[in-house]
Amino acid sequence: MKNVEERIGYTFKNPKLLETALTHSSYANECKKESNERLEFLGDSVLSIIISDYIFRKLKATDEGRLSKYRATLVCEHSLSKVAKRISLNKFIRLGKGEEMTGGRERPSIVSDAFEAVLASIYLDGGIEIARKWVINLMRDSIDDVIMGYGYTDYKTMLQEALQKGDKGKVTYRTVLETGQDHNKTFEVEVLVDNVPQNRGKGHNKKEAEQNAAHIALRNIGKK
Amino acid sequence: MKNVEERIGYTFKNPKLLETALTHSSYANECKKESNERLEFLGDSVLSIIISDYIFRKLKATDEGRLSKYRATLVCEHSLSKVAKRISLNKFIRLGKGEEMTGGRERPSIVSDAFEAVLASIYLDGGIEIARKWVINLMRDSIDDVIMGYGYTDYKTMLQEALQKGDKGKVTYRTVLETGQDHNKTFEVEVLVDNVPQNRGKGHNKKEAEQNAAHIALRNIGKK
Repeated sequence: MKNVEERIGYTFKNPKLLETALTHSSYANECKKESNERLEFLGDSVLSIIISDYIFRKLKATDEGRLSKYRATLVCEHSLSKVAKRISLNKFIRLGKGEEMTGGRERPSIVSDAFEAVLASIYLDGGIEIARKWVINLMRDSIDDVIMGYGYTDYKTMLQEALQKGDKGKVTYRTVLETGQDHNKTFEVEVLVDNVPQNRGKGHNKKEAEQNAAHIALRNIGKK
Repeated sequence: MKNVEERIGYTFKNPKLLETALTHSSYANECKKESNERLEFLGDSVLSIIISDYIFRKLKATDEGRLSKYRATLVCEHSLSKVAKRISLNKFIRLGKGEEMTGGRERPSIVSDAFEAVLASIYLDGGIEIARKWVINLMRDSIDDVIMGYGYTDYKTMLQEALQKGDKGKVTYRTVLETGQDHNKTFEVEVLVDNVPQNRGKGHNKKEAEQNAAHIALRNIGKK
């Protein structure tokens, strides 16, 4: 556990909390330990208030619809597992044998749950201000990326990856509409797969419109 | 605003925050004021961490599935608007004329959003500990009710009300199954409308099973 504490940059008064935070239910079941599920329940809310507070204060002129979207993008499996892997948190998760063998250590749901559980353990051990500093320090770049619209890049990448799995082809985007004044434009972008138009997406810049189009396309694929 | 401060039992350093928290978008649009929507975005997370923290510490042996259920029941329009009305918060909301005329002052969504916004304004003005004391003090009874299973009573009432709207009849419940040891029983209850069986619900006591059955019946009605 000393290694993990060094890696995450926080020393626990009660190291048992960190141990539990890193105990996946598959290991807990095998070894009769407490799993990190209760901590993950708490960590979900801890993360939500910290991110909400941060973007609320930072973006004083941004409406709640957009703030909600930013929060949802940041507080999701994909985003959290990326942050967690950057500090190699996934290497320290205690997994059951089955999960280990089937690649659980890389699975976004398992890694992001452990991340939320570790955040909750820091919150319980050191209070909300220490938890806030810890997670903002780790996520500041992701937050800035999401605010800048780059955070959505993942949908485009995810769409490309999803299509390659199904042996489909090249994804392209084309802007079909551009409306509004300079300071408040709306873009509409169409996504094409092998030059066949699929659906459209809107956004305040082309990047965002493309991401939204990719997001819708992904959902449509999911339905099929 | 002095009246409101007395009613909610907190005096603001920055009363502007409270004013914004009580400004519905319908009034904001008419009078070119800032609405409470951004504050409601923040208040949602403030409430979530306070409730999660409270039930996490209080119920040390309760698994995360049940904790999530408790949280969802407490942090919902219905529950929050009830708490808000108990302190007459809805009387102080600044509404646009149209909303006022169509009964917006009693509408659960408007009242619960204002409640979350007021919580956020206390959080911003006085910090999380003061916000925590304020909301726990107001919601302690509701929390205890939900934990005891009484909080679900609302589904039964809601089902009865929903059916009366559609000119349907009397709702009854009957226990169809009772399994498990004394300390860990499961009940299965069937809900009947005019003596016609509809669906079943499970729970750790009859009350909870009835509520779950009513909840499912409500969702089925919603689908029709």
